[in-house]
Amino acid sequence: MAFNQVTIIGFGLIGSSIARVLRRDHPVARLVCGDISQEVCDKALALGIADEASTDLTAAVQGSDLVVLAVPVGACGPVAQIIAPGLKKGAVITDVGSVKQAVIAAVMPHLPDYVDFVPAHPIAGTEHSGPEAGFAELFQGRWAIITPLPETPLNAIEKVTKLWEAAGSNIEFMEPRRHDLVLAITSHLPHLIAYTIVGTASDLEDHLKADVIKFSASGFRDFTRIAASDPVMWRDIFINNQDAVLEIVQRFTEDLTGMQRAIRWGDGQALQDMFARTRAIRRQVIDAKQADYRYPNQSPALVPQPEALRKASGS
Amino acid sequence: MAFNQVTIIGFGLIGSSIARVLRRDHPVARLVCGDISQEVCDKALALGIADEASTDLTAAVQGSDLVVLAVPVGACGPVAQIIAPGLKKGAVITDVGSVKQAVIAAVMPHLPDYVDFVPAHPIAGTEHSGPEAGFAELFQGRWAIITPLPETPLNAIEKVTKLWEAAGSNIEFMEPRRHDLVLAITSHLPHLIAYTIVGTASDLEDHLKADVIKFSASGFRDFTRIAASDPVMWRDIFINNQDAVLEIVQRFTEDLTGMQRAIRWGDGQALQDMFARTRAIRRQVIDAKQADYRYPNQSPALVPQPEALRKASGS
Repeated sequence: MAFNQVTIIGFGLIGSSIARVLRRDHPVARLVCGDISQEVCDKALALGIADEASTDLTAAVQGSDLVVLAVPVGACGPVAQIIAPGLKKGAVITDVGSVKQAVIAAVMPHLPDYVDFVPAHPIAGTEHSGPEAGFAELFQGRWAIITPLPETPLNAIEKVTKLWEAAGSNIEFMEPRRHDLVLAITSHLPHLIAYTIVGTASDLEDHLKADVIKFSASGFRDFTRIAASDPVMWRDIFINNQDAVLEIVQRFTEDLTGMQRAIRWGDGQALQDMFARTRAIRRQVIDAKQADYRYPNQSPALVPQPEALRKASGS
Repeated sequence: MAFNQVTIIGFGLIGSSIARVLRRDHPVARLVCGDISQEVCDKALALGIADEASTDLTAAVQGSDLVVLAVPVGACGPVAQIIAPGLKKGAVITDVGSVKQAVIAAVMPHLPDYVDFVPAHPIAGTEHSGPEAGFAELFQGRWAIITPLPETPLNAIEKVTKLWEAAGSNIEFMEPRRHDLVLAITSHLPHLIAYTIVGTASDLEDHLKADVIKFSASGFRDFTRIAASDPVMWRDIFINNQDAVLEIVQRFTEDLTGMQRAIRWGDGQALQDMFARTRAIRRQVIDAKQADYRYPNQSPALVPQPEALRKASGS
């Protein structure tokens, strides 16, 4: 990695995990934490994962070759505006947001033409937040999706690719629009559903709620984990990927209504046929090495694919 | 345990796991497998978890002190009718179904008055099915809910309680009606939602479906696991717990519509408030030892509660 100094704006789960990757694999790089919370800045220094930390974001990016925006997607535009005057000529800016079109639209107008923006999204996370929650292995064997713009120079794309390869991720290149649609289905809808079902349970009468928590291992528990994710981060994702999310929620609602109708009319055959189809999808997920027979909710470590970059460079 | 001979009807994941518990803890008991599938009977014998196996269910229960119905809930009534003529005087009959009121209503009319029925439900399972999928530790540290009838003699309840204590389960006594309501929320709704969301994805255009499977680790994957559960078992659960499931699906749909509206109108505050509330529920689930910080989808082994039976006996 050819970075002498890297600034990470936002030292939460993702930002602090990237810092740990750089500390481990690229210890010569000077690491700067930019975070609007003084408490987070103090923690970043105390944890030894930043050489310098500042709540002044414009100052924090000065002299950096790489700037990573690891803030909720709704904050990317405002942060880009704040850091723009401090950016070094030739700096590469990247982000980690779960929405790409809205982030590109919000960030690009603020950036000077002597820097390059490479939008990216590591598909990794836990339900925990904050600088203490991070760890260097978070991205190991997971996908990092890079959604370059038509005008992005190849050498800037390569720098961001190398960052994610160092983190142990498998690289995928995608159009921003397609990224937002795929993520709406695989990530945003599941989170919305989980938040809703846990919300429905939290509205129950107290005596019933106590039993729901007690017997949560029968299915509900898995949803509570997803629904414990960072509230501000997810608020921003839904607001910024509105069109794709609403389209897929609509499809889901129609399908749920069909299920309700089958239950009401006692149409067992329709239910059984549907359940047999969904079982086949699980097999495909396991075949795609995105889940494991013995550890059903973990990714088996994927074989790194160094050819991903070469393929992209050649296209 | 005071059983000389035990018959388990249905040698799937649950039935074969109970057989393994008995083999381990009560090797003197003669174990009989009753299953309408000759293939399953052959496997039960080959696996060494039954001394005898028969597709003739009436014959299979003859001479047994305990008969466990480990079949889909819709099959409990018909099976009770078939086995009734073979039941020994004083035998205890129990089941493992995820619905209690409908099973009680279907089973009771068929049983002779010289046997006792103790409805029960071990809250344990995996997404795998069949006699090879079972294992003796499946019930360890999990809840076993027993829903006795007012007329059930205490000594019959005690026998079933001892079976589940041997399996390592924690015993809870509950009214059948309340069981069905609590399970509708904690288990049946989550499964219905998971089946629906995976079904929605399986209707996507092929090129999109491939990407959804590829990037399923971002949330969707957890739903595919739940949606891989046995189709016939779940068909029967929804049909037989219709009222409670439809009531809770209705509440869920209203809440989801509220979420949709907040997204459409860009009401970030409403979303953030909801997401902060659901995070609190997760903490309660962890506090109740139904999930663990480091292994988020596993129950930490719970301390066995031998006082549960004594409390129930005293009431």
